[in-house]
Amino acid sequence: MKTVTFEKCAELLHNADNILILMHRSPDGDAVGSGYALAHALRKAGKKVMPVCSDDIPEKYGYITDTLEVQNFEPEYIVTVDLADTQLFGDKLIQYKDKVNLCIDHHPSNTGYAEYGIVDAKAGACAQIIKKVINAMNISIDKNIANAIFTGISTDTGCFKYSNASAESYQMAAEMIECGADGFFINKLMFDTKSRQRLEIERLALNSLTYHYDGKIAVIFITKEMMKKSGASDDDTEGISGMPRQIEGVVIGITIREKDNGNFRVSMRSAGDKDVSAVCAEFGGGGHKAAAGCTVTGTAEEVKEKVILAAGAAL
Amino acid sequence: MKTVTFEKCAELLHNADNILILMHRSPDGDAVGSGYALAHALRKAGKKVMPVCSDDIPEKYGYITDTLEVQNFEPEYIVTVDLADTQLFGDKLIQYKDKVNLCIDHHPSNTGYAEYGIVDAKAGACAQIIKKVINAMNISIDKNIANAIFTGISTDTGCFKYSNASAESYQMAAEMIECGADGFFINKLMFDTKSRQRLEIERLALNSLTYHYDGKIAVIFITKEMMKKSGASDDDTEGISGMPRQIEGVVIGITIREKDNGNFRVSMRSAGDKDVSAVCAEFGGGGHKAAAGCTVTGTAEEVKEKVILAAGAAL
Repeated sequence: MKTVTFEKCAELLHNADNILILMHRSPDGDAVGSGYALAHALRKAGKKVMPVCSDDIPEKYGYITDTLEVQNFEPEYIVTVDLADTQLFGDKLIQYKDKVNLCIDHHPSNTGYAEYGIVDAKAGACAQIIKKVINAMNISIDKNIANAIFTGISTDTGCFKYSNASAESYQMAAEMIECGADGFFINKLMFDTKSRQRLEIERLALNSLTYHYDGKIAVIFITKEMMKKSGASDDDTEGISGMPRQIEGVVIGITIREKDNGNFRVSMRSAGDKDVSAVCAEFGGGGHKAAAGCTVTGTAEEVKEKVILAAGAAL
Repeated sequence: MKTVTFEKCAELLHNADNILILMHRSPDGDAVGSGYALAHALRKAGKKVMPVCSDDIPEKYGYITDTLEVQNFEPEYIVTVDLADTQLFGDKLIQYKDKVNLCIDHHPSNTGYAEYGIVDAKAGACAQIIKKVINAMNISIDKNIANAIFTGISTDTGCFKYSNASAESYQMAAEMIECGADGFFINKLMFDTKSRQRLEIERLALNSLTYHYDGKIAVIFITKEMMKKSGASDDDTEGISGMPRQIEGVVIGITIREKDNGNFRVSMRSAGDKDVSAVCAEFGGGGHKAAAGCTVTGTAEEVKEKVILAAGAAL
């Protein structure tokens, strides 16, 4: 993949038409925000363009997707946004895996599958790079673009709570609000609204909470029965793994989820400097120092005991 | 109170010395952030200055308060920050109620108790006004000032989730990070950390959750027994009243807290355009359209029934 400047990127897009913008499967706020912001901008430049995704885009992003009319055309130019790897294209888009002309991304793990690319791992959200691309194309940012970019930044930084929320993230959020983004509406919808199923699985998860090693380890245990009882989908459990680590005094937070055939999915989060990826590696898993996972097989009690013991040894 | 420009405010402060900065009782992040940011800045200008409060400042603000050495002096000039009303001075500071030289605040309800004042109700946080005062004084913003101002902005906007988070709030947050503020540390500490007692009262509150009127009303019921069992203090229950309203489909969220002598404190939150202050007024309470409260007397069951019926009538 040939790295390009923003100027070159703008030139490539100005020269293209009938553009397909690919978003990753299981699309999140940054994927949708980046894809639709770029699509809106390219429409303003007179292009035929459509953002596409292998999976349905969750309804909560309707305020972004509903503002762009569907266009049908024979694709001539393929752009990916927030897409680190062709493995994340999903079934419907995998046909384009060797045909990507331009990749705009912020994942350090980007595999460089495209002809041209801008990858900035320092950007808190891919939407921040898209904003610079739009600026380089000299396209003015309207309310629709602003809402999409704001959503990307806010969701990928966990409402400005994660370490990737940089001065640039805040500064661009300010600019997007000045361009018409409804930051209040977006943050309320993304971070202050829970489905009944989500609240129910949270309640059951909290009821399962146990403390170990003088409160340095906290464990949440989610059974298949609990998932069924709550009616929660996998989407509803997003972020639950972060709950035990939030507790004051907890050094390692563990979430164990019962899967099929005696398998249990374990998520570990470290609140301090303990390396949970090393703990998970003992069970054949991995991840980052502060967030890792593994799959452990056995009875519920066996798995819980093994995992707590391994985490305890890492304290 | 005579309204002054930022220039005049800067002049007043440049001409003063032995300055006492009063913060309101039950100090929050904006009170502490505003008070300490201004104190740090005035120290840089060579002044003797100390922020003071009737109540102890919560330990979690230690990263702000610990950076300022305690100074003792005979106060000559009294400044208040984020302080709408002399009723909020508290016991230790009430002696200054008729002696305030300068008031810097963002509450529209400010009673104008000082000689001079800057009150800007459009500022999301008082810390945003303090920042402009420091700029007007030509004092450069260092890490300590930046951390204090960032804290004020972030806490008073609920980590940028409330409607008062304006473009200016985000823009100043960006600037503070550039001046050395550790936004990640601050937001994690303020919004991503819960005490065990807090989590326990949350768990018990969730277990008490009931839905009414087709899920349009959700009610949480917190008994004295639950408070005792969880070990939670009133501080730990901060924000719990917001939980029922977060649920998808809920129009009015109600939290009922058992108090002494058959009294129950009711908090109502509206997710849409229903006016809960009118509902609370039926019980002799009041508040805002979207957030109101009242006290109702009776047995737990009676109170619950009365309150739900009244809220249901407002749907």
